[in-house]
Amino acid sequence: MAEPLGIGLVGCGTVGAGVAQILLNHPDRLAARAGRRLELRRIAVRDAARPRPVTLPAGLVGTDPRAVLTDPTVDVVVELVGGTTVARTVVLDALAAGKHVVTANKALLAEAGAEVFEAARAAGRAVCFEAAVAGGVPIIRALGESLAANQVTAIQGILNGTSNFILTSMAEGGMTYPAALAEAQRLGYAEADPTLDVDGSDAAHKLAVLAQIAFGVAARPDQIERHGIDTLDAQDIRFASELGYTIKLLAEAWTGASRDGGREVALHVAPVLLRHTNLLAQVRGAFNAISVHGDVVGETLYQGPGAGMMPTASSVVADLIDLAVGRAQATFAAARLWSREGKGFVVEPVERVRSRFYLRLTVADRPGVLADITRILADEGISISSVVQHEAGEAAKEPVPLVILTHTAETGRFRTALRKMAALPTVAAPPVSYSMGD
Amino acid sequence: MAEPLGIGLVGCGTVGAGVAQILLNHPDRLAARAGRRLELRRIAVRDAARPRPVTLPAGLVGTDPRAVLTDPTVDVVVELVGGTTVARTVVLDALAAGKHVVTANKALLAEAGAEVFEAARAAGRAVCFEAAVAGGVPIIRALGESLAANQVTAIQGILNGTSNFILTSMAEGGMTYPAALAEAQRLGYAEADPTLDVDGSDAAHKLAVLAQIAFGVAARPDQIERHGIDTLDAQDIRFASELGYTIKLLAEAWTGASRDGGREVALHVAPVLLRHTNLLAQVRGAFNAISVHGDVVGETLYQGPGAGMMPTASSVVADLIDLAVGRAQATFAAARLWSREGKGFVVEPVERVRSRFYLRLTVADRPGVLADITRILADEGISISSVVQHEAGEAAKEPVPLVILTHTAETGRFRTALRKMAALPTVAAPPVSYSMGD
Repeated sequence: MAEPLGIGLVGCGTVGAGVAQILLNHPDRLAARAGRRLELRRIAVRDAARPRPVTLPAGLVGTDPRAVLTDPTVDVVVELVGGTTVARTVVLDALAAGKHVVTANKALLAEAGAEVFEAARAAGRAVCFEAAVAGGVPIIRALGESLAANQVTAIQGILNGTSNFILTSMAEGGMTYPAALAEAQRLGYAEADPTLDVDGSDAAHKLAVLAQIAFGVAARPDQIERHGIDTLDAQDIRFASELGYTIKLLAEAWTGASRDGGREVALHVAPVLLRHTNLLAQVRGAFNAISVHGDVVGETLYQGPGAGMMPTASSVVADLIDLAVGRAQATFAAARLWSREGKGFVVEPVERVRSRFYLRLTVADRPGVLADITRILADEGISISSVVQHEAGEAAKEPVPLVILTHTAETGRFRTALRKMAALPTVAAPPVSYSMGD
Repeated sequence: MAEPLGIGLVGCGTVGAGVAQILLNHPDRLAARAGRRLELRRIAVRDAARPRPVTLPAGLVGTDPRAVLTDPTVDVVVELVGGTTVARTVVLDALAAGKHVVTANKALLAEAGAEVFEAARAAGRAVCFEAAVAGGVPIIRALGESLAANQVTAIQGILNGTSNFILTSMAEGGMTYPAALAEAQRLGYAEADPTLDVDGSDAAHKLAVLAQIAFGVAARPDQIERHGIDTLDAQDIRFASELGYTIKLLAEAWTGASRDGGREVALHVAPVLLRHTNLLAQVRGAFNAISVHGDVVGETLYQGPGAGMMPTASSVVADLIDLAVGRAQATFAAARLWSREGKGFVVEPVERVRSRFYLRLTVADRPGVLADITRILADEGISISSVVQHEAGEAAKEPVPLVILTHTAETGRFRTALRKMAALPTVAAPPVSYSMGD
C-alpha cells in the first residue's frame, strides 16, 4: 500500500468535527477505498477549550493555522474556517506551501475563485470543493465528470436548505414567513441571523460555483439577480397551490444564443412556481436538489441533505479519497476551472429569458380594471393562461387580489408591463410576480 | 496537449451510434474536458449495410471485431454487442490485447464480473461501466466515488424504465397490464419480447452490479429473489392508491448484522408500495432513479433517463473522458471490484428482512373470515395497520377482496402466515402480497 495521505484541518466547527470523526472512526474503510491510509495529522481551532462532539487526539490540536500549513507531514489542508478573509489566506498559504486544498467555502470560491485556482495551478496542487455546494449531494462531480460529454444547457437547483425548510412549513403547515422562520431557528435549520440564507445570497454563491463548472463563467455577485423568500407572502403560496403549483426558492441558469451569435447564460435566484408534479416541487424540508439539463443526456436530478455536520463531512472526505487515489489531481488539471480561457459563455441579465409568470395584483373591484390590465399585457405581446379573481364578499369596497398566469413571455417585456400596471390608479399595491418553471 | 485517445467500437446499434455521434460531432468539447482528443479509430458492426442515424467515416467500419482488438492505434474498446457470449470474448480479448474496456453490458458484469475484472487486473487495464446501470444516471460514480466515505446501508432503485413506464400507464391511465404493455411497445419503450424487462431479470442484473460496488458481493442470479410486474393486477394499483401508495418495481438491498456477528445483505426485485410523497413514487415514465442510504451522508437520490440512445451514450463517453484524464485507471486500481477479497458482506435471502406488507385476499363474505385471518397474523407476531373490505354489493355470494396493511414484520414470518391463509377454505384465491417502503 502507498504512503499514507497526511491531512490537516484548519477550522473544527460542526463540519470539521464531522470530518475528524469519519477519519478517526473508519480508518480501515477509508484505506480500502483510497488504496492508502488517510491520517489526520494536525488541527488548528480558534478555541481549543470549546467542547466538540468528537474527541480529538491530544497533541494534534493547536490554535495557529501556520502550524498546519508548515507541517511537512501534512499533504492536504482542509479549510473549514468559512468567510473570505482568514479562509483566503489559509487557502493561498496552503497552496504556496505545496499542500492540496479541500474546502467547503462557496463564498470564497464565488468571490476569489480565479485567484485561488491560479495559485493552485502555479503550485501544481489541486483544490477540491464537493462540499461547497449542496452538502452531501455530489453535484460537483456530476457536472464536472459524469456529465462531461454534455454541454449543460440549464440548471434548476434548490440550494438553500433553510429556505426550503421554511417554504415547506409555509406550504404544508399554513404558517406565515415569520412563524416558519422562528420554527426553523428553534429546530436549528436557521441561524440567529438568517439573512444570507433567506435573501438568496447563499444560493447565489452556490450558483456562481456551478456556473463556473458548467459554463466557465466567473459570475460577479451583481450578475446574479436575487430575490429571497423573506418577502414572500403566504397568500401567494396558497394561490399557487390552488392553481397546481408549489413555490420553491430556485437558483436557475438558462443558456441561449446571444445576439452576436455567441453563447450566453442568465442566472438568478428567486422564488419560482413549479407544478406539483415536478420532482423539485416534491423536495421537502432542509433537503437540496439540483436538476441539470445536458444537451446529450437530457435531464438528470440529484437530491440529498444540503447541509449539516455529517452530510457535508461525507463530501469533504470523498474529496480526500479522490486526492489519495489521484483522481482529484487529474480532474483539476483537465478542468482548468476559473482559468482565463473561459468556455465562450457571456453572462447576461435575465431580461431576455422567456418564462411563464405568476402575477398578483391588488386591485379596486370596479369596472374596467381587468380591461386595463389585459390591455397592458397585450401591448407587450403577453398572452394570459388563466385569471382568478375571487368575489370580494362583504367588504366590497376593499381592494381584492387578482391572480393572473401568463403564457411564455420575455422577462424584460413582462417587467415593462409590470411597471405600467403599477402606475394604474386602480392598482392599490405594488404588483407581486414570480416566474414559473415546468 | 497529450496524445489522442484511440477508440474502437465493437457493436454499433442504437447506443453505439449515439457514442459515434458524440465523438464525431463534439471533438473540441471532449478534448477540452479530457485534456486530449478522443479519436474514433475503428468500428466493428454485424451488418455494415444497415442504416444508422449517424454517418460513420468510410474506412473505419468493418464486420470483424478482431480488426478493432488488434489495431495498435486503439487504446480503448467500447463493447456494445450485448449478451454474454460474443461480448465476453470481445472484452477478454480486448483486455488481453492491452486495451481498456468500456461496456454497457450489465448481464456480462452480473454473470462474469469476476472473470472480466481479474483479466483486467492481470492486463493492467481498466474496465468502465457507468452505462451498464440506469443509462444516463451516474450511479456508478456516485456509489464508487462520491459516497466513498460511507458504508452504503440500503439501496432502492427504479432500474427498469420499461416496467416503470408500464406502471405509470396503469396507475395514471387506469390501464390493464396487457394494454399498458402494448402501449409501451407501440411507443418503443418495450421490445417485442419484453420478458427480461417485465419479469425483473434486467433490474436484478443491475442490482447485482450495484451490490458489487456497495457491498463487495458477487451475487449469483438465484440470490436475488425477483418478482416482475407481469403478474400485477390493476386492482392492487387501485387499492394501493386509495390507501396513499404508489406501486413501483424496485430493486432493493438491505443490510444488517448476521447472526454470527458478521454483515449481511439481502437483495430482491419486486413491486413495492411507496407512499405517494416518496420521491421514488414520483418518478414517472421511462425514467430511472436510485435512492442510496449511506451511514455518514444519510439518503441521496439520483434520477434521470434510464435508457435510450443518447442518455446511455452520454455515460459511455463520460467513461472515455475518465480514461483519457486518467481517473478511471486510478479508480479501477483502488476499487478492486469483483476481487476475491470481498468486503465482509454475505448475501442472505430476504426472509429476515423486516418490512411492512400489503396483503389482498379474496375471501368468502361470511362470518369468522376476518377472525381466522387476523388470528393467523397474530400467531406470527404480525400486527395490522389497516383493513379495507368494501361491501359486497349485489353479488353478495361472490368472494370479495379484503385488503390488509401490516405493521413491520419479518418477511419469513409473514410468508408463513401467507401459507396458512392460503390453506383456509374461506380464502378463494392465492393471497397477493407486496412489501411496503416508506
